[in-house]
Amino acid sequence: MPFDFNDMARRIRALGTQIAPASIEGTAALYAPLHEREPYEGVRVTRDLRYGEHQRHRLDIFHGARGAHGADVLLFVHGGGFVGGDKKNPGSPYNDNVALWAVRHGLIGINMTYRLAPQAQWPSGGQDVAAAVAWVRDHVAQYGGEPRRIFVLGTSAGAVHVATFVTRGELHGPQGAGIAGAILLSGIYKLALMPSNPMHTAYYGSDPRVLERASTFDGLLETRVPLMFVLTEMDPADFQRQGLEIIQAWFARHGRWPRFVHMPGHNHLSSTMHLNSPDGSLGVQLLEFMAGTP
Amino acid sequence: MPFDFNDMARRIRALGTQIAPASIEGTAALYAPLHEREPYEGVRVTRDLRYGEHQRHRLDIFHGARGAHGADVLLFVHGGGFVGGDKKNPGSPYNDNVALWAVRHGLIGINMTYRLAPQAQWPSGGQDVAAAVAWVRDHVAQYGGEPRRIFVLGTSAGAVHVATFVTRGELHGPQGAGIAGAILLSGIYKLALMPSNPMHTAYYGSDPRVLERASTFDGLLETRVPLMFVLTEMDPADFQRQGLEIIQAWFARHGRWPRFVHMPGHNHLSSTMHLNSPDGSLGVQLLEFMAGTP
Repeated sequence: MPFDFNDMARRIRALGTQIAPASIEGTAALYAPLHEREPYEGVRVTRDLRYGEHQRHRLDIFHGARGAHGADVLLFVHGGGFVGGDKKNPGSPYNDNVALWAVRHGLIGINMTYRLAPQAQWPSGGQDVAAAVAWVRDHVAQYGGEPRRIFVLGTSAGAVHVATFVTRGELHGPQGAGIAGAILLSGIYKLALMPSNPMHTAYYGSDPRVLERASTFDGLLETRVPLMFVLTEMDPADFQRQGLEIIQAWFARHGRWPRFVHMPGHNHLSSTMHLNSPDGSLGVQLLEFMAGTP
Repeated sequence: MPFDFNDMARRIRALGTQIAPASIEGTAALYAPLHEREPYEGVRVTRDLRYGEHQRHRLDIFHGARGAHGADVLLFVHGGGFVGGDKKNPGSPYNDNVALWAVRHGLIGINMTYRLAPQAQWPSGGQDVAAAVAWVRDHVAQYGGEPRRIFVLGTSAGAVHVATFVTRGELHGPQGAGIAGAILLSGIYKLALMPSNPMHTAYYGSDPRVLERASTFDGLLETRVPLMFVLTEMDPADFQRQGLEIIQAWFARHGRWPRFVHMPGHNHLSSTMHLNSPDGSLGVQLLEFMAGTP
């Protein structure tokens, strides 16, 4: 049976816009039957490579045939409200599905994890993305990847960490950020607009000056790293506001919209959970963005 | 050779954002070789049906096999700055391509034309859309269409006319607008934001009170007709501003974004000129919107 986009969209919408255990598990359950199960045919997976000293400084590389080379690289940074999430949830297709989607489209797929709050606080997430990018640049050729073609995809808190990395020069090397582009899914860019919540406090602390300094909003408007922003229909209103604000400011600054995808029938979780399923919602736009970025 | 989206996008971008003869003809020429030529295999075309008394009150119906019934109907309203444009440009694939795209996806495709400024002025375009919709509702069943499933797609000035029809109750019948949904491509909704230009003056005259009354902005925020908004990367900045403003106001009113598609690598013309070519940019979203609208 072909995939019925609108039937899935109805089920997703029925889960509401709140990010809560029921909607997270509900979304995961909707897409789980549509995903591949291990072992993944024709894919080589090298897990738990260390890109730093902390136990969460680890990444999994999904790659294809031996001897391939020069492939674009997609480095995925998971979400989890700064305090949770992982590159691989045991017994579940997530987030293997993101790296698998990449391999199935001729890319090298890499899932990284990073230190969590409250043990690690801002800007630890951005530092960890920087360390992972540096590691990938040094090692990805031996897996068939092109070190000059690293794209970083972050969702939710992961998008915040990617935005932090992109906008803070002290996290870059002498050649700049050293990535070909970044894709920011349902991120938070202007922290002051978000209502105070325990996850933010865990990561940023409670000093309002830190929130001001940690905001990536102005930096994103100025960066030379090619960006693509993504928002979903069922994102909580606070995230929809973030997307609107960055586009408004981008238009005011550049006289045009940024590269932007609005995903109907998707929520804060399904924007990545659907990747590598028969639901092609974001895949085409991701591939076009990467292939079209010099 | 498979269609190369990014190669086409580069050619489109090279035409700039101005709507001028060179960019119009340039866009038309880029997609022309990718389009079907008459006669269109397996498609029945009934041209120049009269939906009113004026010589431009005419429409072309593209339909499929005899005996089919209950198909969704797509009624296309062309652009042309209020003073030009037609349903069919002789010797060219446009705008047959839009109705053909519809038929090739199981819909009934209808192209209408309408009276032009300065002979006909506001709200003649909205009146003509209303008359065409009424005609289609009365006659489309005999071509295989479902009268309760009429979607209206307008681009540029055509989007303005569709928006006028959707938002002005005096143009509706006792059952309301009588359409299942509307798709507005690169439209103008808040007239006061547009710089004064000869085409607007031709259609609206020069009384600022008319511009105020003719604005569809507030009405679009309140209508119960399902809407999808579309904007392209290379739309002139004034059109990009219109899209941004309507989304801002929609978010303020409804706490969420409207259904919205931002088309990378496309311009004000290619958003419809690419339909029925191997470039699938807007097609999937159009079909999903229609199929998902009750």
